Amino acid sequence: MIENVGNLQSVRKSIKLLDATLRDGGIVNSFNFSDDFVKALYKANVESGVDIMEFGYKVSEKMFDKSKFGKWKFSKEEDIRAIVGENKTDMQICVMSDVGRVDLKKEVIKKSDSVIDMYRIAAYINQIPTAIEMIEYCHKMGYKTSCNVMAISKNQESDMRRMLEIVGQSPVDIIYIVDSFGAIYPEEIRRVCDMYMETAVKYGKQLGIHAHNNQQLAFANTIEACAMGVNYLDATVCGMGRGAGNCFTEQMLGFLKNPRYNLERMLRFIRKYMPEVKKNNVWGYDTPYLITGLYNTHPYAAIDFIKANRDDYEEFLRQIQGY
Amino acid sequence: MIENVGNLQSVRKSIKLLDATLRDGGIVNSFNFSDDFVKALYKANVESGVDIMEFGYKVSEKMFDKSKFGKWKFSKEEDIRAIVGENKTDMQICVMSDVGRVDLKKEVIKKSDSVIDMYRIAAYINQIPTAIEMIEYCHKMGYKTSCNVMAISKNQESDMRRMLEIVGQSPVDIIYIVDSFGAIYPEEIRRVCDMYMETAVKYGKQLGIHAHNNQQLAFANTIEACAMGVNYLDATVCGMGRGAGNCFTEQMLGFLKNPRYNLERMLRFIRKYMPEVKKNNVWGYDTPYLITGLYNTHPYAAIDFIKANRDDYEEFLRQIQGY
Repeated sequence: MIENVGNLQSVRKSIKLLDATLRDGGIVNSFNFSDDFVKALYKANVESGVDIMEFGYKVSEKMFDKSKFGKWKFSKEEDIRAIVGENKTDMQICVMSDVGRVDLKKEVIKKSDSVIDMYRIAAYINQIPTAIEMIEYCHKMGYKTSCNVMAISKNQESDMRRMLEIVGQSPVDIIYIVDSFGAIYPEEIRRVCDMYMETAVKYGKQLGIHAHNNQQLAFANTIEACAMGVNYLDATVCGMGRGAGNCFTEQMLGFLKNPRYNLERMLRFIRKYMPEVKKNNVWGYDTPYLITGLYNTHPYAAIDFIKANRDDYEEFLRQIQGY
Repeated sequence: MIENVGNLQSVRKSIKLLDATLRDGGIVNSFNFSDDFVKALYKANVESGVDIMEFGYKVSEKMFDKSKFGKWKFSKEEDIRAIVGENKTDMQICVMSDVGRVDLKKEVIKKSDSVIDMYRIAAYINQIPTAIEMIEYCHKMGYKTSCNVMAISKNQESDMRRMLEIVGQSPVDIIYIVDSFGAIYPEEIRRVCDMYMETAVKYGKQLGIHAHNNQQLAFANTIEACAMGVNYLDATVCGMGRGAGNCFTEQMLGFLKNPRYNLERMLRFIRKYMPEVKKNNVWGYDTPYLITGLYNTHPYAAIDFIKANRDDYEEFLRQIQGY
C-alpha cells in the first residue's frame, strides 16, 4: 500500500475523495440545510466524481434538543432516502457517530436494509474502547467503518502508537488522521503519516485524513498526506466546516488527476448554492483561528470571539497562551 | 548553508522575515496608503521583530501616470525618510525595481546618502541580462541586492538552471524563488529549493521565497522552503497582495521561534489599521484564483473576473483551460 503513492501527474485509483459538507459544514449552521440544497449537493457530488458523501451525524435524538438542529444532525434512514432514493450511483454514502452520543445498537439497521455504506466513528483517544465496540457492531451489521481519532495534536506519540495497535486489531477498514485543531504543520503530517502507515501496512488497513484550516494548511496537509499514501481524503465545499473550516472539495477536484473528477460540475453548484449559505453563515480562516491553531487548542474560543464581534486580538492571544 | 535548517522547535538566526505589505499590498490599492498607516506599519514591523520592510516599488515617474498611484509606487528617498527618519532600528529597508520600468542609474543614489539597505530586482527569466546590469549597479553603489525571478512555474527546468548559473555569478546577495501564479505545490517547492540551493551553495548566495495564495499554499510553501534552508521569507500583513495575496506576516511571526518575533505587536496593528483597508479593498483566496493557480496562469484574469462581479465560474474555467 505504501508504494502506491503515484506522483503529481499520475492517477491513483485507490484515492477516495469524501465530501463532508453536510456533516462538518452542518456544525456551522446547526445542520439547517434546505432539502433543495442537499439534493443539489448530492447531484453535484455524483456528477463531479466524489467517491463518498457524508450526510451528517447519526446521534441519538434523545440526547439533543431536536428543535435546535436540522435533520442532518440525526441522518435518519428515511431522510437520506428522500434525497438519494436507492442511491443507484457509484458514490457511497456515510454518516458519522460520536462516541457517547448514540447507542448504535438502537440505531443501526442491517446494511441490506440501508442506503448507508459506511459508519465513521469519531472518538477522542480515551474513548477508543467504546469506539471499537461501535466499529465491531457496525461491521457485524454489514457496514464499512472508519475510526476517526480526533485532536491528535494533543496526544503523546506513545499513546498514539498504543491506540493504533488497538484500532489496527479491530475490524475497522480505515483509520483517519484528524487534525481537529488545525495545529499540525506539513512536516509533522508527514511524520504522523509514517506512524499511521506502519499500522496500516501491518494490519491491512486504509488511511484517511481530515484537516482543518486554522493555519491555512488544510489543503497542503491533505495533499502531503495523499503523497504519503493516505487514500481517503476529506473535504467540504468552499471549506465549509467548524471554525476555520476544512480542505476545499473543489480544490481536491482540481488537484486530483483521475478523469472521474470534474471540477466544472462542482463550480456550477458553488455558483448557484453557496452565496446564500455564505451570506447567512461565517466560517473560514481568520486571525483568531491562527491563534488557536498556533497554540494547539480547540477552536471554540475563536468561534466565540468572532460571534461576539470582538477585535481585541492581543487579549485573546494572552488568554489562549494562558496568561 | 544547507545544513543550517533547524527544526520546528529551534531558532535559526539566519532567517530574515521580510514584510512586503506596502509593495505587494500596494498593487491592491494602487499604493494609496495613508502616511498614518505607513508610520504605524513601520512601528509595528520594528516592534514585532520583522527583519526587513519593503517600502514599495522604485520605478520611473516618467513611465507612469503619477496621478493614478500613491507615493509608494515610486518610493522616493524623501518620502521614506519622512516615515523612518534615519531608521535607527535593527530593521532594514528595501524597495523593488522591475526590469524595464526604471533606469536605476538615474534613480539610485549612493548607499551612504540613503536609508535604503537593499534593492530587489524583479525580472522575468528573459530579462535576466538587464537584471544583472541593475544588480551590478546597485551593488557598486553600496546596496545589498536580491534577484527575484518571477513566475518560475512557467519556466522549463533547463532554463532555470541556466538562469541560476548566470545569477549565481553576479554580485547579487539573495536569489528569490517567486511563485507569482500560486501554482506550485509543496512537493514541487521542495524540488525547486533543491535546484536553487545547488547554486546558492556553489556561489555563496542566500535564498528567499515569495509565495502567492491562489491555492491556499502561500504559508505552506513558505515554511516548507524555510525547512529546506531558504532564509529570506516574504510575507504581508493579512496576506495583502495582488489577487489571492501572499503568505501572512502574522502567521510567520507566530510560526518562527526566534524570541525577537512578537506576534502581539502585529495583532495590535491589525486590529487598529486593517479593518479599514479590508473594507475598501479586495484580496485573498477565492474560487477564480484557485482556477488560475491550478492552470498555472497569471491571476489578472481572476482579478478582472472578481472586479466585474462575475459568478460564471464554469465559463471562466473553460476560458482559462483555453477552450
